[in-house]
Amino acid sequence: MAMATMDKIGDPVTGRGVVEQRFDTACEGRTVPAILWRPEAIEGATPLVLLGHGGTLHKRADYILAIARWLAGRHGIASVAIDGPVHGDRRAPGSDPEKTFDDFVQAWKRPQTVDETVRDFQAALGAAESEMAVGAVGYFGFSMGTMMGVPLVAAEPRISVAVLGLMGPWGSIADRLRQDAPEVTCPVRFLVQWDDELIARELCFELFDSLGTRDKHLRAHPGPHRAVPASEMRDVPGWLAEHLS
Amino acid sequence: MAMATMDKIGDPVTGRGVVEQRFDTACEGRTVPAILWRPEAIEGATPLVLLGHGGTLHKRADYILAIARWLAGRHGIASVAIDGPVHGDRRAPGSDPEKTFDDFVQAWKRPQTVDETVRDFQAALGAAESEMAVGAVGYFGFSMGTMMGVPLVAAEPRISVAVLGLMGPWGSIADRLRQDAPEVTCPVRFLVQWDDELIARELCFELFDSLGTRDKHLRAHPGPHRAVPASEMRDVPGWLAEHLS
Repeated sequence: MAMATMDKIGDPVTGRGVVEQRFDTACEGRTVPAILWRPEAIEGATPLVLLGHGGTLHKRADYILAIARWLAGRHGIASVAIDGPVHGDRRAPGSDPEKTFDDFVQAWKRPQTVDETVRDFQAALGAAESEMAVGAVGYFGFSMGTMMGVPLVAAEPRISVAVLGLMGPWGSIADRLRQDAPEVTCPVRFLVQWDDELIARELCFELFDSLGTRDKHLRAHPGPHRAVPASEMRDVPGWLAEHLS
Repeated sequence: MAMATMDKIGDPVTGRGVVEQRFDTACEGRTVPAILWRPEAIEGATPLVLLGHGGTLHKRADYILAIARWLAGRHGIASVAIDGPVHGDRRAPGSDPEKTFDDFVQAWKRPQTVDETVRDFQAALGAAESEMAVGAVGYFGFSMGTMMGVPLVAAEPRISVAVLGLMGPWGSIADRLRQDAPEVTCPVRFLVQWDDELIARELCFELFDSLGTRDKHLRAHPGPHRAVPASEMRDVPGWLAEHLS
């Protein structure tokens, strides 16, 4: 991986023992907008979780921010989120907010999008390493976060645990997910919404089934795509910490 | 419910703060062999979990004993297990151990078995109440434990939380489970073994789907029927305690 650097945007903001630093990093001519969260007090190598947000959202969506703060504040674990393709600060200036979902679907039809996104995450991890000593690495991402996450976890050997879900072999990326899932060999927690109206649970089951690891478990809750219970979200950081700390 | 009494068998055995008392209780002319586990130190009403073992096993199977000891020792929660129909001390004297599975299947073909088993559990709960003040009541049982548990939880309004799984509408009891599942309205954790060779996961999904409660979640792990991970078992008492204490 080429040496990545962190172009900080603004000063770090510290609250409740968690430092938040917005930054850009460069990857193959693309600017990758990102955020690093870390515990205020760091000693030695710190575990880090890469956070992939869902479609139409951005790197500082409420639940991403909550996971990042819990990881740092309760478990001493850093995290990095990036804006996914055509999301957040990567949306074209003046683009129509009503078209966010359509733009997201179109972006994933570009054959390059998957591999570019993998390298964007790797660049953001590299940028974090230019700032601090990083220990074990994990991944968290539901829905589009799993569209990004399965290829990333398959490609990046440093990722040793992942939380995935709300996605199956779907749309333009179906074949790529089928191809990469067997390469996911780390422990995985996989979430399913039982009444998912966007990604039918049978598709989610298929992706879970095809993950290469035997150390995987599935959790399902009633309700539609976006109704993940708060209790499930609250449980994620502790499970990641068990594997990373 | 008729007043049930506890016919103690032997003296209580105490270890690591947990008291174990074997007993029989009578129900409609049947003798119900049972065990009560309780914390050594009791103050006031104590929550209690009814434990239903799996087919071919008995009331003191290893995992039942482990759950009972964790509940009492870590969470201050009592529990009562009974031998299911034609299991444990209810097997006919001299019956062939090789025929345990066949006898189990035959027993559930008797139309009376389901309702008798519900009343046997209720009698065992009554017997426990003749010994101690019982607070909130829960249920735990996988596989045959869920064949017994779904009708019991549907019928017994005192049960306010249940751990079920490894079962679907199956065999002679399929219609009864389909009929009773919508009457299960308490919070439920439901376990599925992804590669279950006895009860296909699709059947388990059907039973989970038909449970009447919205406060339910499903957990699935790779592996066959009997390969529930130890980590999943260890997590059960704490989850029950959250709801009962």
